[in-house]
Amino acid sequence: MKKTILNSFMFLMLVLASVYAQGQTTLSHEGHIHTKAYAVKEEKGNLVPYDFDRRAVGDDDILIDILYSGICHSDIHTVKGDWGSISYPCVPGHEIVGRVSKIGKNVSKFKIGDIAGVGCMVNSCGKCHYCESGEEQYCTGGATYTYNSREGDGYTQGGYSTNIVVKESFALKVPQNVPLARVAPLLCAGITTYSPLRYNHVKKGDKVAVAGFGGLGHMALKYALAMGAEVTVFDITEDKRQAALDMGARQYVNTTNPKEMEGFNSSFNLILSTIPFNFQVESYLSMLEVDGTMVLIGVQPMDQIPSVNTMALWGRRKIYHSLIGGINETQEMLDYSIKNNIYPQIEIIPMQQVNEAYENVLDGKVQFRYVIDMQSIK
Amino acid sequence: MKKTILNSFMFLMLVLASVYAQGQTTLSHEGHIHTKAYAVKEEKGNLVPYDFDRRAVGDDDILIDILYSGICHSDIHTVKGDWGSISYPCVPGHEIVGRVSKIGKNVSKFKIGDIAGVGCMVNSCGKCHYCESGEEQYCTGGATYTYNSREGDGYTQGGYSTNIVVKESFALKVPQNVPLARVAPLLCAGITTYSPLRYNHVKKGDKVAVAGFGGLGHMALKYALAMGAEVTVFDITEDKRQAALDMGARQYVNTTNPKEMEGFNSSFNLILSTIPFNFQVESYLSMLEVDGTMVLIGVQPMDQIPSVNTMALWGRRKIYHSLIGGINETQEMLDYSIKNNIYPQIEIIPMQQVNEAYENVLDGKVQFRYVIDMQSIK
Repeated sequence: MKKTILNSFMFLMLVLASVYAQGQTTLSHEGHIHTKAYAVKEEKGNLVPYDFDRRAVGDDDILIDILYSGICHSDIHTVKGDWGSISYPCVPGHEIVGRVSKIGKNVSKFKIGDIAGVGCMVNSCGKCHYCESGEEQYCTGGATYTYNSREGDGYTQGGYSTNIVVKESFALKVPQNVPLARVAPLLCAGITTYSPLRYNHVKKGDKVAVAGFGGLGHMALKYALAMGAEVTVFDITEDKRQAALDMGARQYVNTTNPKEMEGFNSSFNLILSTIPFNFQVESYLSMLEVDGTMVLIGVQPMDQIPSVNTMALWGRRKIYHSLIGGINETQEMLDYSIKNNIYPQIEIIPMQQVNEAYENVLDGKVQFRYVIDMQSIK
Repeated sequence: MKKTILNSFMFLMLVLASVYAQGQTTLSHEGHIHTKAYAVKEEKGNLVPYDFDRRAVGDDDILIDILYSGICHSDIHTVKGDWGSISYPCVPGHEIVGRVSKIGKNVSKFKIGDIAGVGCMVNSCGKCHYCESGEEQYCTGGATYTYNSREGDGYTQGGYSTNIVVKESFALKVPQNVPLARVAPLLCAGITTYSPLRYNHVKKGDKVAVAGFGGLGHMALKYALAMGAEVTVFDITEDKRQAALDMGARQYVNTTNPKEMEGFNSSFNLILSTIPFNFQVESYLSMLEVDGTMVLIGVQPMDQIPSVNTMALWGRRKIYHSLIGGINETQEMLDYSIKNNIYPQIEIIPMQQVNEAYENVLDGKVQFRYVIDMQSIK
C-alpha cells in the first residue's frame, strides 16, 4: 500500500517535472524568446507550425508561458482575409491565459508563477483622452492589437503560441485556483459582451435579446442573467435551443422559422447582436421598445457589413457598435466572472486540430468556444 | 392736433373692432364650427380655399380662433404625397397659435381670451405607458396627429384654417405679451429640436453640429447655444452663412465645398440632422467623437430615407430618430423659449401665398420659417 502511494507520488512528481520542463521558455541570443506557434503563411492558407522569436523582455514587460488560447471568430475573419490583407505569417489568438515566467525590472503587478491573461490589445498611446480614461480600445493614436498589428519594424503575433511578451499594463490578473481553460475566452468574448451590458446599465427586470448564440452570445446570456435581466436568445439553428434554455434563457427563437419571429414588436430594452455576417438589422430594431438600444458586437467580413434603414430608428431606437472594453474594465469583468462563476462552455482541443475547429465554428457546430491547449505544441 | 389724435384713435378702434369681428367664429347648426381653410383636394394639387365644419366644442375641448399658422416641411411632404397617399381634402398646419373663443364645461386650463397653441398632436390613447409618462408622441395606441390622422369617421384637419377645436389637454398655454407669430413655429420646429438637445443633456462646452439650417436647424442652433454648446452649422448653400454666424454659430460649413468638410473627424458630441432628403449619413457619423450621438429629426420622403452602413457606428457612435416631444415637454419648451427670448426668424405671409411659399421652402429660399397670418382669410 505504502509502495503504491509512493509510486503514485513519484509518478505525479515526474509528470509535474515534465510539464514544468515543457512549460519553460527557451531564451535565444540577445534575450529574444523562442516561440513555437501556428500561423497562416499565405492567402487562403491553413494554419501551420511556425517558429519565431519574441522580443526580449523589457523593463515593463512580462513573459507569459501560454497555457490556453481561445479561438475567436475574429481570428477566423482575419485568417480568411475577411477584413482585408494581413501581414504573413500571422499568428492569431487574443484569448490568452498562461503563467508568468519572467518579469522586467519595473514590473510590480505580477511575480513569476502568477497567472496572467492577455486580450485583444497589447499597447496604446497612453496619452490620449481615451487611454487616460481607461478606454484604450478607442485610443486615438491607434491601439496595438494582439496580432496583425504594426509594432516597431514588424507585426504583433498572437496567442496560438507557446509564449508571449507583453507590457504588464496590458496583462490581466487571474487567480490560480480557477478553471484556466475557461478563463481564456473571457479575454475577448467575455469583455465584448460584459462591456455593453454594463454601459447600458442592465438591471433586474430588463428585457434583453441576444442575437447569435455562439461564443459571444452565450456569454451575453450568462452576464445578462447575472445582472437580473430576462433574456431571449435568437439563432438560426435548432441545435442550440436546449443549451440556451438550460443556461437560463426565457425563450429561444429559431429565426429560420418565421412563425417564431412573430410577436416581438417593442419587446426589448436592449438587443446585443453577435451575428458575424450580414443580416436584416431592421427586423431586430422593430423588437426594441421606444428608447431601446441595439448594440452590434459581432464583426462581419468587409463585404458583409449590414446597413440600416434609418426609418427603423424611429422612436429613439438607438444603434451603435461596441468594441471589447478597456483594460480596467477587462479586469473588472474577470473579477466579476470569477466571483459569479460565469465561464464559457468550452471544448479543449490540441493545436493540431485548429483548422478543423475553424470549419466547425463557421458551420456553427461548436458549443460554444474552442480553447487550444498550448501544451500540445510545447 | 386734438382732432388728429381723436381721428387716429377712432381709426384704431375701427380696425380693432373689424379684426375682432373677423376673428369671431361662426357657429353653424348643432354647434358645429364653420371654418375657412386652405386644403389640398387632389394628388399633386395646390392648396386652394376650402370651407368645412369643425366638430362642436365638447366638454373637454376648447375652440381656438387661429391667429398664426407656421409652414413646416412636413406639411409639404404630406401635401406632395411624399409619405404616401393622404385623405383629401387635407388641411395642413401643425404650428398653431390663436385665441380661445369657447371652452367646454370641464375645461380648467384655459379661459376665453387666453392664447393657446397646438402642435403636431391633438389626441392619444391616454392609457399606455408612453401617454402616462408624458411621451404621447410614442403612444402605442397611435397618437392622433393634427391633420390627415384618422379621427372618428373622418380625418383631422390642421391649422391653415380660421379655427380649430381641440382637447384642452393637447393645447399649450401661451402668454399674451409675446410675439405670437413667432411662437407658432415653436409648436413643431421648437419642440422637435429642443427635445433631443434636452434628452442628450447638452451643456456648457458641448460640441454640437446642426446639419441642415432651415426652420428646424436655426432653432436647433438657438437652443444649443442657450444651453451653452459650441455649435457648427452645415448646409448646402452659401446664402445662410452670414445668418448662422450672426445667430452665434462658431462655424458655418458649406457642404458643397469638399475643402470645408475636412478636419471634422471626431469633433462633435452631438449632431442633429434636420436634412429632409436623402444624404450620406456616414460622412456626419465620422465627425462624432467616441460615444457621440447623431439624432435624425428631419423626415425624408419615403423613397429618400437614408441608410447607414453600420461600420460607421464603431466607437459607440449612436444614431436614432427623435420625433417632436410630449405635451408636457412642449409646454416646458414654450416656457423656456419665452424666458430665454428664443424665437424663430419668420416671414409672415397671407394665406393666398402659400403655394409660392412651398416652392421657396423646397428651394431653400426661406429664411427661416413662413408663418401664415390667418387674418388673411377671415
